[in-house]
Amino acid sequence: MQANERAQPLRVGVAGLGRLGRRHAGNLAYRVPGATLAAACSPLEDDLAWARDALPEARLYRDYAELLVDTSVDAVWLVTPSALHAQQIVDALRAGKHVFCEKPLSLDVAECERVVEEARRFPDRQVTIGFMRRFDPSYHDAFEQVRAGAIGRPFLVRSQTCDLNDPDGFFVRFAPGSGGIFLDCTVHDIDVARWLLGKPRATRVFAAGAVALHEGLREYGDVDNGVAICEFQGGKLAMFYASRTMAHGNDTSSEVFGTAGALAIGHLPRANRVEIYDAHGVRSVCTPTFFDRFEEAFLIEAQAFVAAVRARHGGEAGAVEHAQQGATLEDALEATRIGFALRESLRTGQAVTL
Amino acid sequence: MQANERAQPLRVGVAGLGRLGRRHAGNLAYRVPGATLAAACSPLEDDLAWARDALPEARLYRDYAELLVDTSVDAVWLVTPSALHAQQIVDALRAGKHVFCEKPLSLDVAECERVVEEARRFPDRQVTIGFMRRFDPSYHDAFEQVRAGAIGRPFLVRSQTCDLNDPDGFFVRFAPGSGGIFLDCTVHDIDVARWLLGKPRATRVFAAGAVALHEGLREYGDVDNGVAICEFQGGKLAMFYASRTMAHGNDTSSEVFGTAGALAIGHLPRANRVEIYDAHGVRSVCTPTFFDRFEEAFLIEAQAFVAAVRARHGGEAGAVEHAQQGATLEDALEATRIGFALRESLRTGQAVTL
Amino acid sequence: MQANERAQPLRVGVAGLGRLGRRHAGNLAYRVPGATLAAACSPLEDDLAWARDALPEARLYRDYAELLVDTSVDAVWLVTPSALHAQQIVDALRAGKHVFCEKPLSLDVAECERVVEEARRFPDRQVTIGFMRRFDPSYHDAFEQVRAGAIGRPFLVRSQTCDLNDPDGFFVRFAPGSGGIFLDCTVHDIDVARWLLGKPRATRVFAAGAVALHEGLREYGDVDNGVAICEFQGGKLAMFYASRTMAHGNDTSSEVFGTAGALAIGHLPRANRVEIYDAHGVRSVCTPTFFDRFEEAFLIEAQAFVAAVRARHGGEAGAVEHAQQGATLEDALEATRIGFALRESLRTGQAVTL
Amino acid sequence: MQANERAQPLRVGVAGLGRLGRRHAGNLAYRVPGATLAAACSPLEDDLAWARDALPEARLYRDYAELLVDTSVDAVWLVTPSALHAQQIVDALRAGKHVFCEKPLSLDVAECERVVEEARRFPDRQVTIGFMRRFDPSYHDAFEQVRAGAIGRPFLVRSQTCDLNDPDGFFVRFAPGSGGIFLDCTVHDIDVARWLLGKPRATRVFAAGAVALHEGLREYGDVDNGVAICEFQGGKLAMFYASRTMAHGNDTSSEVFGTAGALAIGHLPRANRVEIYDAHGVRSVCTPTFFDRFEEAFLIEAQAFVAAVRARHGGEAGAVEHAQQGATLEDALEATRIGFALRESLRTGQAVTL
Repeated sequence: MQANERAQPLRVGVAGLGRLGRRHAGNLAYRVPGATLAAACSPLEDDLAWARDALPEARLYRDYAELLVDTSVDAVWLVTPSALHAQQIVDALRAGKHVFCEKPLSLDVAECERVVEEARRFPDRQVTIGFMRRFDPSYHDAFEQVRAGAIGRPFLVRSQTCDLNDPDGFFVRFAPGSGGIFLDCTVHDIDVARWLLGKPRATRVFAAGAVALHEGLREYGDVDNGVAICEFQGGKLAMFYASRTMAHGNDTSSEVFGTAGALAIGHLPRANRVEIYDAHGVRSVCTPTFFDRFEEAFLIEAQAFVAAVRARHGGEAGAVEHAQQGATLEDALEATRIGFALRESLRTGQAVTL
Repeated sequence: MQANERAQPLRVGVAGLGRLGRRHAGNLAYRVPGATLAAACSPLEDDLAWARDALPEARLYRDYAELLVDTSVDAVWLVTPSALHAQQIVDALRAGKHVFCEKPLSLDVAECERVVEEARRFPDRQVTIGFMRRFDPSYHDAFEQVRAGAIGRPFLVRSQTCDLNDPDGFFVRFAPGSGGIFLDCTVHDIDVARWLLGKPRATRVFAAGAVALHEGLREYGDVDNGVAICEFQGGKLAMFYASRTMAHGNDTSSEVFGTAGALAIGHLPRANRVEIYDAHGVRSVCTPTFFDRFEEAFLIEAQAFVAAVRARHGGEAGAVEHAQQGATLEDALEATRIGFALRESLRTGQAVTL
Repeated sequence: MQANERAQPLRVGVAGLGRLGRRHAGNLAYRVPGATLAAACSPLEDDLAWARDALPEARLYRDYAELLVDTSVDAVWLVTPSALHAQQIVDALRAGKHVFCEKPLSLDVAECERVVEEARRFPDRQVTIGFMRRFDPSYHDAFEQVRAGAIGRPFLVRSQTCDLNDPDGFFVRFAPGSGGIFLDCTVHDIDVARWLLGKPRATRVFAAGAVALHEGLREYGDVDNGVAICEFQGGKLAMFYASRTMAHGNDTSSEVFGTAGALAIGHLPRANRVEIYDAHGVRSVCTPTFFDRFEEAFLIEAQAFVAAVRARHGGEAGAVEHAQQGATLEDALEATRIGFALRESLRTGQAVTL
Repeated sequence: MQANERAQPLRVGVAGLGRLGRRHAGNLAYRVPGATLAAACSPLEDDLAWARDALPEARLYRDYAELLVDTSVDAVWLVTPSALHAQQIVDALRAGKHVFCEKPLSLDVAECERVVEEARRFPDRQVTIGFMRRFDPSYHDAFEQVRAGAIGRPFLVRSQTCDLNDPDGFFVRFAPGSGGIFLDCTVHDIDVARWLLGKPRATRVFAAGAVALHEGLREYGDVDNGVAICEFQGGKLAMFYASRTMAHGNDTSSEVFGTAGALAIGHLPRANRVEIYDAHGVRSVCTPTFFDRFEEAFLIEAQAFVAAVRARHGGEAGAVEHAQQGATLEDALEATRIGFALRESLRTGQAVTL
């Protein structure tokens, strides 16, 4: 990596400067060796004001099209509204850029397929979808242990995405556009399951749900707690749980069971290494949000993307593997396909065959 | 209770002296205040030889019918093969006995219904089916916390029954008679879920499974790992996992999620309070079998049954509640009904509506 | 054991029917195979009234001397005030009884020595001092692992006895007679350390203390938090911590370090297997008192004593080992000697050589 | 901080490019906003070759004196042999530099005092000694909780520094120069204890030790396992344990007890959030070395130093507090003084009064 650090840095332009976008921009500007934050783009004046202060060396644009014509930008980093992702990826590829795009690729399977097809025309461009859990050190360690055969043949993943309850139910307003709990939350668990099980294709799914607290979701056919089973080719299985009503914090965990053992990742979502002994007993405070839980993963994800692009350019051995560490467009398509089937199953009460 | 201990003891006759039967017999003979082990019954000479040595004060019978005509036996304790349970319960009730019967009530729903109907004719007889988890101190504590409102309204249970792998696959031979993994193992989790959720009725289930290690199960349509979802009336949910292939021990755990918090019972199936620090890291040895995990529950279950019968006879306040602590025939019927539907779903790949 | 259970039971007489005495009496009456509670003794009318109700089959005495002349009592069980222990043991031995005595043997080293000497005249009588931790299943498992060489050569024990704070400071009134925190609490840890390290003799100790909450202790030279180091022959070491001011419960734990690993017993004093997920984080409720933590140990201790006496009488192989499972008078003498030295060190601020 | 990031960066020169020096250099070069690594210095050709490759923008020196005359260096970062620290700090201050110096300040109390005195002449220079635990997020969280009163008045700290055993005993060769286990390892725990207890002065100490595995230490009067008690003004206490013979990894943990609760930091030194379920039970792999455990602390420590210096220059509110987050020379002096007394106590077997 040291050699890379001296090579020409990768010049990145971030599109989207909301809460998560700002975090990505800060990482790319100050914490990713081999990258410079060359440009940032948002239609919102507030975002640009923030950028003028926090990202003094970045060129600022209001319009994504302007970013794409900036020839000193090598890669775009999309943290824009989900509905824009698909077209923005295609446009970026046509403009010759590498692309990192936050999940989801799209809430529409056909649109996912169009992007996959289009991207095949640009095989020398790196495209990564932001399933950041793959870069969390604990998830990564589990993945490597599975790959090394530590648990024999993996055949079952249980995985959950559980968010701290927002008593204001602010998110209910976004229910129409979020795609529902399975496409918004479980899509991460779907990607984790496929990644840990060797990327099998799903064959059948079943889902059910409950509205525990947020009655407003009912009119959109959505739930605040969802459970699901997914069957894969080769007799592999996954169980998913997603919740928006936890009292204790963001509780994201996964387990992978194999023929010779099992691994659990993230049991007890402790915020740090402190335990408190008081009248409540012995307790650990929990990570409040996915930002807190996956802060490090977001950073490593950015470092890995930059390293992957530079490895391609450097013609380095291992470049292909580097490039595949993150989720590909095909992975994102498959996760969306499964998420859709779960939503369909929730709606109909029937198992859905893929 | 002290008053009870001086009252006339309950005279119990155990039928079935296999591994679990012997444990029940030893508890009743030596560790249950207010009970005496008056008789024991088995058709096997080995069992009777064991009993002559270990239970010197018990009258011994080869034939269940003889036990039933022994008028100095107040209650029978059935630890016999599952296929006999239903008829033996009915016979015992007709002979005027109270009945404790190991799970399952029956592997046939219609037969369960016949027993329920017959038992209605004997309202003053105590009949309890041995879902011992209800008496495990940790499960009981969780139940009491839920009842006291500690987690708000409970709406989801996740529960698992995972056994240490038997490399010889000895249990495969019993697959034809066990009813399959859901009726044999998950039936405990079904009872736990209904008990913690307020005894709702199931409305729809879906199940899937995998054969991870024991290929011989395929010919019986059984699996060594099964997953399931159960929807209940009132929008409540349960997820189940059963496995016969764990590498670390018997891992039985449950979680109940409510609108204001959650409780986990049995996470990390540590055998005791010892942690080992060595070249493997920091570790806890696990309970190898359900006997080790639920030893205390079997004892408390017996104590509770005896206390319940004596409370009925003593006309004590709280007698009804005592009597309902364990699983009733109706609970066992509902657990069997759900277990059957899970087996059907596994077979068909479709959701099953109840 | 089954053979024993048919042999003549050991007839026990309990002396002292306070809180702990009643627990011992209840265990011996109803939960110890091979024992009967033949008699009980207390000078207090309240205690005797309790006994008439709870122990209907026991002969009741006001006077310890009456208990000793009851020839149908084989063993006495002393749960009397500490100051009486030494003489009561001697008197019981002279009356031909086996003796179980709660700790401490005495708060006076010379008196301990007199009892040891006197007891040598009765080699066929079983005398055990109630260091119940040895019978806790987790402590016992650790002991067996150490003995089997699992951690190599053990050379260091850390052990603590920490009690839930009593805001009323009721115990301060007993400070004059308790012998101080080291003789009252740490004496258990001293016994654990010697037991796990192979019963070495102490060579030097140092102690210090703090009054965190209970200022009233100062006038007795006592503290509510004490720390100590003990050096043993052969270069072995122990560290002790005792506290009366915990906010979370009774927290009794020990660690033993060896040349090839370490064992921890009782880290995280969870009351059971339930974890609570709520706005405080994820927590375990703790055992409030040593009664709750060591309930099982008290029972096993009684079973082991009875088994040991019966094994002696039965001339069984292993009888000697059985008899030595609990703490001997010599163990109690050595623990008292070390406890005294700690008190002396606390008083003088100097290391004390033994 | 964003404003700072645009201000003139702090130009740092690292002296010493061994294993830890290289880590500091890499952090300062690439991961500390507001800093640039302007120069690096080592007498060793290997180190310089590494630096030419890894730190292409740094000016390289063989001689510390050259670094001090480089006027474009604002601060020096000493990761040199311990014996050089004291004089190098003084020389740096006289050359007008801010100073970060790895612990220990010196192994000689008088020399520590000389540095403290000399540094008083340069009140506008930032001098921090590298007790990095203060910057570990978990230690920092505990410190903030204590400061906020969460556990009432803190009165006792238990703290340990336990290293994975090196079977080759390589470190034995360095025993003559390390100052012994208390000055080399426990000095961190001493600083933690004083920091969490409000920086009290020690009044008396006692130490003992054992040679568990590394017999070669005996000739230097050193041990591979040491235990100690430290009494502070105001009736506060600390207990320390240091070991070089752990089987499971680097196990650094601390506890602070207060009148209303306690906090534990670092119990169970798990490497990450993965748990392994296999034939050994359920286990966590541990951090092998202090590098792995405190990687993040080293980075935050560097960020805090840089922020503190820049805050001084910016005349910012909170600058003084920032500047005091790390250990001052006075803290290092006091830690050394206590470490010395522990060594003296180990040697003499007597308590040592300070």
